[in-house]
Amino acid sequence: MAYTPSMTRLIQELSKLPGIGEKTAARLAFHILRADGGLADGLAAALKALKEQTRLCRTCHGLTEVDPCPICASGERAADVICVVEEPADLIAIERSRGFRGRYHVLQGALSPLDGVGPEDLQIGGLLQRLRGDTVREVILATNPTVEGEATALYLARLIKPLGVRVTRIAHGIPMGGDVEYADVVTLGRALDGRRDM
Amino acid sequence: MAYTPSMTRLIQELSKLPGIGEKTAARLAFHILRADGGLADGLAAALKALKEQTRLCRTCHGLTEVDPCPICASGERAADVICVVEEPADLIAIERSRGFRGRYHVLQGALSPLDGVGPEDLQIGGLLQRLRGDTVREVILATNPTVEGEATALYLARLIKPLGVRVTRIAHGIPMGGDVEYADVVTLGRALDGRRDM
Repeated sequence: MAYTPSMTRLIQELSKLPGIGEKTAARLAFHILRADGGLADGLAAALKALKEQTRLCRTCHGLTEVDPCPICASGERAADVICVVEEPADLIAIERSRGFRGRYHVLQGALSPLDGVGPEDLQIGGLLQRLRGDTVREVILATNPTVEGEATALYLARLIKPLGVRVTRIAHGIPMGGDVEYADVVTLGRALDGRRDM
Repeated sequence: MAYTPSMTRLIQELSKLPGIGEKTAARLAFHILRADGGLADGLAAALKALKEQTRLCRTCHGLTEVDPCPICASGERAADVICVVEEPADLIAIERSRGFRGRYHVLQGALSPLDGVGPEDLQIGGLLQRLRGDTVREVILATNPTVEGEATALYLARLIKPLGVRVTRIAHGIPMGGDVEYADVVTLGRALDGRRDM
């Protein structure tokens, strides 16, 4: 005898989450068991609601509960600039910075031949569609500064430039509050390349 | 705009779990969203099942889906020795060691006057009830070697000894695979006090 069957089941389900091993899952399961029933009920209901209510915007492929999403539908957001990101989480991070008032396009991933992710697996067709007509004047590529994200940015730049749309890439360099001494060589190189007149 | 309402709700619920802050909760929520629906469904169903099926054994107050629990009901477990632990998780840890073939009693906590936990908040009455009659010959106190666990063990020892039952405390010392050099002074003191002839 170890756990009860229902405890074992919850531990197994929790272990499927990223970064949660069996020990952590057991700790969480015991916490849920000790807490009054509201915690288990609240979590179960929230999981159900997420699955039923959250979907992807058909225009930008970001998360939304209404289609088109509030950003695509908003008249207050600049329609002439589209910021391209890999994942919905990236969109949310940029929104939090309050540094961007245009619209988004979520690729739902990045090119990764080793993982079998090619252009046809990303939301690239929809992006090109949005660039037809004369509305969009700039596409900001905000994919991650990883091998995959850089390859995706290069691929998109080659595809979009011939359409006569300005293509920009977000800046990379020493993070604010970071330390030049401890920055890695690639980041330092990027910071030097991207230097600006003061 | 940040998350969708249902994402925000799931993140809030996940943040209630111990050791899970808002950032981790968001990461988990995005993972659940990206995974096929089975993960959310499986978790929600497991939470529901845990709440409906797992309860406490009325004899030992350990977790069970049947009352009395399999250990209390088993004829193969020694009925003359009871191991007293603080939490159901402690019972499971001892079961895993395969070092004990008697029965258990789960106190559901430890004495902690600062947190307002007194003897009446623990499952002590039920334990004393089980010691009436002549069946039980030994009570092993396996509460944690913390201030609260030690106080609880002392309190129980004073209560049980007058009943003519042998009261023992699990050994404390250098953990197996541990290093004498790095052991803390309290553990080292305990290890010396508890030395045995070889």
